Amino acid sequence: MTARTTDAADDLAAGPEAVIAASPIAAELRAELERRWSAGTDHIGDIARYALLAPGKMLRPLMLVATAESVGGDRAAVLPAALSVEYLHVASLVHDDIIDGDELRRGRPSVPAKFGVADAIVTGDALILGLFDTLAECGLPAEAVLGAVRAVAAAGVDLCRGQALEAELLRDPACPPERYRRMAALKTGALFRAACRSGAILGGGTAEQVEAATRFAERVGAAFQMRDDLLPYLADSSVTGKSADSDAGNMRPTFPVIVGHRMAGPQDRAVLVDALSGTRSPAESFALLREVLERLGAVEHAAEQAEDEIRRAHAELDALPVAEGTRLLAAVADLAIHRDR
Amino acid sequence: MTARTTDAADDLAAGPEAVIAASPIAAELRAELERRWSAGTDHIGDIARYALLAPGKMLRPLMLVATAESVGGDRAAVLPAALSVEYLHVASLVHDDIIDGDELRRGRPSVPAKFGVADAIVTGDALILGLFDTLAECGLPAEAVLGAVRAVAAAGVDLCRGQALEAELLRDPACPPERYRRMAALKTGALFRAACRSGAILGGGTAEQVEAATRFAERVGAAFQMRDDLLPYLADSSVTGKSADSDAGNMRPTFPVIVGHRMAGPQDRAVLVDALSGTRSPAESFALLREVLERLGAVEHAAEQAEDEIRRAHAELDALPVAEGTRLLAAVADLAIHRDR
Repeated sequence: MTARTTDAADDLAAGPEAVIAASPIAAELRAELERRWSAGTDHIGDIARYALLAPGKMLRPLMLVATAESVGGDRAAVLPAALSVEYLHVASLVHDDIIDGDELRRGRPSVPAKFGVADAIVTGDALILGLFDTLAECGLPAEAVLGAVRAVAAAGVDLCRGQALEAELLRDPACPPERYRRMAALKTGALFRAACRSGAILGGGTAEQVEAATRFAERVGAAFQMRDDLLPYLADSSVTGKSADSDAGNMRPTFPVIVGHRMAGPQDRAVLVDALSGTRSPAESFALLREVLERLGAVEHAAEQAEDEIRRAHAELDALPVAEGTRLLAAVADLAIHRDR
Repeated sequence: MTARTTDAADDLAAGPEAVIAASPIAAELRAELERRWSAGTDHIGDIARYALLAPGKMLRPLMLVATAESVGGDRAAVLPAALSVEYLHVASLVHDDIIDGDELRRGRPSVPAKFGVADAIVTGDALILGLFDTLAECGLPAEAVLGAVRAVAAAGVDLCRGQALEAELLRDPACPPERYRRMAALKTGALFRAACRSGAILGGGTAEQVEAATRFAERVGAAFQMRDDLLPYLADSSVTGKSADSDAGNMRPTFPVIVGHRMAGPQDRAVLVDALSGTRSPAESFALLREVLERLGAVEHAAEQAEDEIRRAHAELDALPVAEGTRLLAAVADLAIHRDR
């Protein structure tokens, strides 16, 4: 038995959250955020600090650092790039909370609820712009840094296109699964892709390693969105921190709904359409969906597909040579489908 | 008489708009925009196209190209960078129109008025993110391109900070001129600085030339904002395309107000404070300001300061060796204080 398989067996026993918690990377990232965003610079700086230092798992910057390490890169050299993908993630949350009118985020008042829409728009913009200055700080060959700039910028545009595509899918449980997957790849996969791709580029990975890391991220991103959609059917809303009927109330055809629609006969299909029509209360819509989807086995079937994504994600890690990085990436992949929130 | 001074004399006779119109750069930029933003890609693409292809002077991308040429750079190589500063400018306008609730922009419905706030937020974000991918396309040495990335990103953050600072200055005609200048340097100067600085870097300018181009841009930016503030007192609103009393109605202490407050006695100062207090109609506020500022000579005095900025801007052009570029920059500088809108 090699050291790597022993580690893998230990990791399985400990659970992905323990593996991630045992890594010093998250603490280093948080310390670097604290150092860079000291209080009392100016108003925009204070709002950015509030948004960035909210409790969060920092999965995306963690993945960037782990991917860089998995191809032999240096952790300290890529820290600025890791922060930059967190800035993009947080900026997208701040702007999302304006669009969705969400007043709570990570258990605290959202940025627009606390500081107003105008300052929330400007702070999100400042984070997006500033992230490229931060990314460019990485003291690595300019060609590699420029490659990371392009990877993050392109992923950010994808994220925006995914948000627009999601709005187009509303109310339609008959949405073809490929269309859902395309939306999820853009909206959710983009940031994971930005993290792993730029991590592999900055870590000095070969072209083949960069592509494997990118495919890994795409699988994890897809599973992450599927799990997000499954959470209302699997976990208690007091654990998820998100109202169970919020997707149903927003008329979103989520992954189990789309899976269920393909499994259903005409009568159940009519119920699914009715539930997303916007004519019922969120609680009523969710109860209708839940009854049909559980009876058809759509929830289990959707969960199996998310697990399949993660199996395929794990297979990509074989192309990445340094075990210290791949262990952490494997744990993040497992967390994507085992988290309760 | 050298060729250059002959040109300068001709330019003075023709006027800055004629010099700019005679340059093929604006047409090349517009053709490149049309080519890149063809209709019918996706919803975000269509909105971006609507915003980008509105009639506009494209001063900032023009300045980037002219600066690159003024230090011996190649026009075709910097075109993507020129577009990227236009994307930033247009994105900031789209987000501004949400913040200010403006329904008209360049004589057409604004993006939020036409497409809604959600799509306006996402389209602005996509433009900001996409600009860095476009900028990175420039087929120039990676070190130079990365320098331009940093210049544009830092200027973009400054723009956001300037918007926040402007909000802090509201209702205060006693605002110290240095504070106003700082706001204008951030809010308005930033994009001019991004254009000229990155143009000089990408054009292969020396460190000294890069700094001279940066100082030129800062002077032009300051004068541009001063002129913007002066327009309601100088030109007819049917020409400016902006309601003459809009700044007064928004309680903004503009440049002539700040200049006038320093020139005024206690009685006139009280009138200025009253006019910006938000207790009067926009038309009434503007009439009060206009009477005081014209009587004190504050309008002329403010206009002289804008002209002084442009004189100093011209002096910086001596450091830039290629006349074809500097002629155009000189024309843009003159336009900044001679335009009516």
